Amino acid sequence: MEAEIISVGTELLLGQVVNSDTAYVARRLAEMGFDIRFTCVVGDNSDRLAEVLKNALANSDIVVATGGLGPTEDDLTKQTCAAAAGRKLVRDEDTCHRLASYFRGRTCSHSQMNQAMLPEGCTIFPNDHGTAPGCGFTTDEGKVLLMLPGPPRELVPMLQTYALPYLAQWVDGVIASTNIRAFGIGEGSAAEKIDDLVQGANPTAATYALEDEMYVRVTAKAKTKEEVQALCAPLADEVRRRLGDYVYGTDVDSLEVVVVRELQRQGKLLATAESCTGGMLAERITDISGASQVFHMGLVTYSNEVKNLLLGVPADLLAEKGAVCPETAAAMAQGVRRKAHADFGIGITGVAGPKTSEGKPVGYILIALDDGEHTWIRTMDGQGGRKERNYLRHRAASNALDLLRRRLFQMPMDSRGWDRTSEFPSRTAQK
Amino acid sequence: MEAEIISVGTELLLGQVVNSDTAYVARRLAEMGFDIRFTCVVGDNSDRLAEVLKNALANSDIVVATGGLGPTEDDLTKQTCAAAAGRKLVRDEDTCHRLASYFRGRTCSHSQMNQAMLPEGCTIFPNDHGTAPGCGFTTDEGKVLLMLPGPPRELVPMLQTYALPYLAQWVDGVIASTNIRAFGIGEGSAAEKIDDLVQGANPTAATYALEDEMYVRVTAKAKTKEEVQALCAPLADEVRRRLGDYVYGTDVDSLEVVVVRELQRQGKLLATAESCTGGMLAERITDISGASQVFHMGLVTYSNEVKNLLLGVPADLLAEKGAVCPETAAAMAQGVRRKAHADFGIGITGVAGPKTSEGKPVGYILIALDDGEHTWIRTMDGQGGRKERNYLRHRAASNALDLLRRRLFQMPMDSRGWDRTSEFPSRTAQK
Repeated sequence: MEAEIISVGTELLLGQVVNSDTAYVARRLAEMGFDIRFTCVVGDNSDRLAEVLKNALANSDIVVATGGLGPTEDDLTKQTCAAAAGRKLVRDEDTCHRLASYFRGRTCSHSQMNQAMLPEGCTIFPNDHGTAPGCGFTTDEGKVLLMLPGPPRELVPMLQTYALPYLAQWVDGVIASTNIRAFGIGEGSAAEKIDDLVQGANPTAATYALEDEMYVRVTAKAKTKEEVQALCAPLADEVRRRLGDYVYGTDVDSLEVVVVRELQRQGKLLATAESCTGGMLAERITDISGASQVFHMGLVTYSNEVKNLLLGVPADLLAEKGAVCPETAAAMAQGVRRKAHADFGIGITGVAGPKTSEGKPVGYILIALDDGEHTWIRTMDGQGGRKERNYLRHRAASNALDLLRRRLFQMPMDSRGWDRTSEFPSRTAQK
Repeated sequence: MEAEIISVGTELLLGQVVNSDTAYVARRLAEMGFDIRFTCVVGDNSDRLAEVLKNALANSDIVVATGGLGPTEDDLTKQTCAAAAGRKLVRDEDTCHRLASYFRGRTCSHSQMNQAMLPEGCTIFPNDHGTAPGCGFTTDEGKVLLMLPGPPRELVPMLQTYALPYLAQWVDGVIASTNIRAFGIGEGSAAEKIDDLVQGANPTAATYALEDEMYVRVTAKAKTKEEVQALCAPLADEVRRRLGDYVYGTDVDSLEVVVVRELQRQGKLLATAESCTGGMLAERITDISGASQVFHMGLVTYSNEVKNLLLGVPADLLAEKGAVCPETAAAMAQGVRRKAHADFGIGITGVAGPKTSEGKPVGYILIALDDGEHTWIRTMDGQGGRKERNYLRHRAASNALDLLRRRLFQMPMDSRGWDRTSEFPSRTAQK
């Protein structure tokens, strides 16, 4: 079956927002085995949307419209789609109740309540992360028309939880994927390692890049879930074998999930001291529900005085070698571990930019992990590569999590990848 | 003049690559005053591209095709565009020389040399960052047809250096926008306050939602930049008047930028103590370059012991009333202010979920600001609304920034918006 995706929104048309919805929906539909014929963007303009919808319903079997479901005047998708398919909009009581409970204690305006008006006879996709529900229905001509909200944080879970299962009735067989996630290796290098594995048709393997990591998605299609798994497993195993200890998990959400869960399992405590990452590492760790069992103290020590006062980084070290050096990173990791009575301490210091500091280049960042016996230091050397502040901070925090992951799982501490790691005896152990 | 953008590439159509070209081209064309009518993506399929081109050339004055200019078999854009416009492809000697010099010492294949075949009479856009040149020409029907390469690192500079100057001959007028940013009010409520203002055609006003805030974009078109500004200014003023002190800035990036810049201007120091936000507030503050002048210490005190040890939150208070209460939030703000010798202290404690804690509902979060004389406490009551952990944490951090913004600019501390604020004398002042 051929599918077409229409994104609605003047902000998308004018390029004020990059259209990530279309790519996401296309990828998921393609994985289910639908052929993507065409995708387009129209502004918040009912006539133009009607024209595009007419063509889409004539040419494709499945039409997905994203965006324009909200409560404001320029949200025209539902009316226009319903009209194009000759459907009335009717009030859905369940959605009314959901909206009333969402706005409990606050005013739920008339325009908000308009979001409960949905095409007659449609299957409603509840919005678990916002107000506007989505929906799907079959037109009198047998075409399938879906509407999904525009904000990705609403669209992504709605597609996963409600829209893809709804579309499954037109799929013959089962399609499923497994995601192998890796840190410390670029998408290009990973692709080279598995270039002969991405040629297959069923199962398929494809590489994807994320902010500072990459993953390989292995997908197969078969009659049953079991057959799909049997098809995927050998290919996934081979991908993991080729990528080695860059792989931090399969079908997991993030490095921080892997680290927090393993700290919980081992009953260990972590403490962090951050300078240039400014709390991003603590924030990522505490984003994981249950982190309070393994993480009690995180310090953001942005000045030298505070590094000395809270962490005991020697004032003469700071005066002599500065805040951005391996010795300071090590002292931060050791200091916070002692202060928090933790099993592991992490210290991060460096130059996130945009300006250089202490004569060190932007991107020069030291990440230290101390376990009381050893201190490991991973060095981002600031030579070449991306220089955006947020990217550098995120990659530094990821390097810290990767160091701890390798320590927890007793892997080699140096990834031989992007950034190199050295090992020293912990200063506390020497005392 | 109306413009249309066609992106060519199966990898874009299947969502394997997010289409950032279209957004970029659209934004640059809109800034020049062209109306973007429609954008779409087609796969590497000559028939489908021909069909889309035919419609585009019939409906729009300017058609920009991106991608599919390279040397490989599936690069069909030039042939298809030339055929659609009834032009021959002819060999361009300058491009031949450029290619020969690009491949000096390496083999320049026949297919590489095909890139020098360009529509007769076109204006060539040299590719300073790759091999395939772009081009533009006017069809016999007076339509303007441009072709640009797909890779952003080639397209972006080519657009800037060659294609926009080429398009300048058709420009009459300038289009520009101003963005008014607000916190504490939903997009729906804001839209109701300005619903009569969004009706105009030039200037226009439109509301947009972000993670936990909203903004109004005022846009106008006129002959000169000055006329655009003169058109926008009165409408922007009226929007600001209607939204009142929810507005935290115009054409600024974020709440944290406004707060850090004002702390710098006043020469004041901030310190933070976070429980449920886990460092997100510190991370957002230190994301702003120059934050080191106004922020030296941020503490993530995730356990009661650490709240007592680092912040001096009384153990009997924690034992009696728990970690999640207004008194603890206040003691955290006061404690970190004293410890850091700062002018302002912020304390955040609450239940970010997914589980309830101490019998308090998910979303119940207390945000305290202390300035040594007064302590203000803003309460997120956990009734209704969104419950995702990350959203709650982000909104709590935003509330902290909003409290400090109001204090710095001497505005009312209670926004009368989403979450209410109470005032107490600072405990430190009473001592």
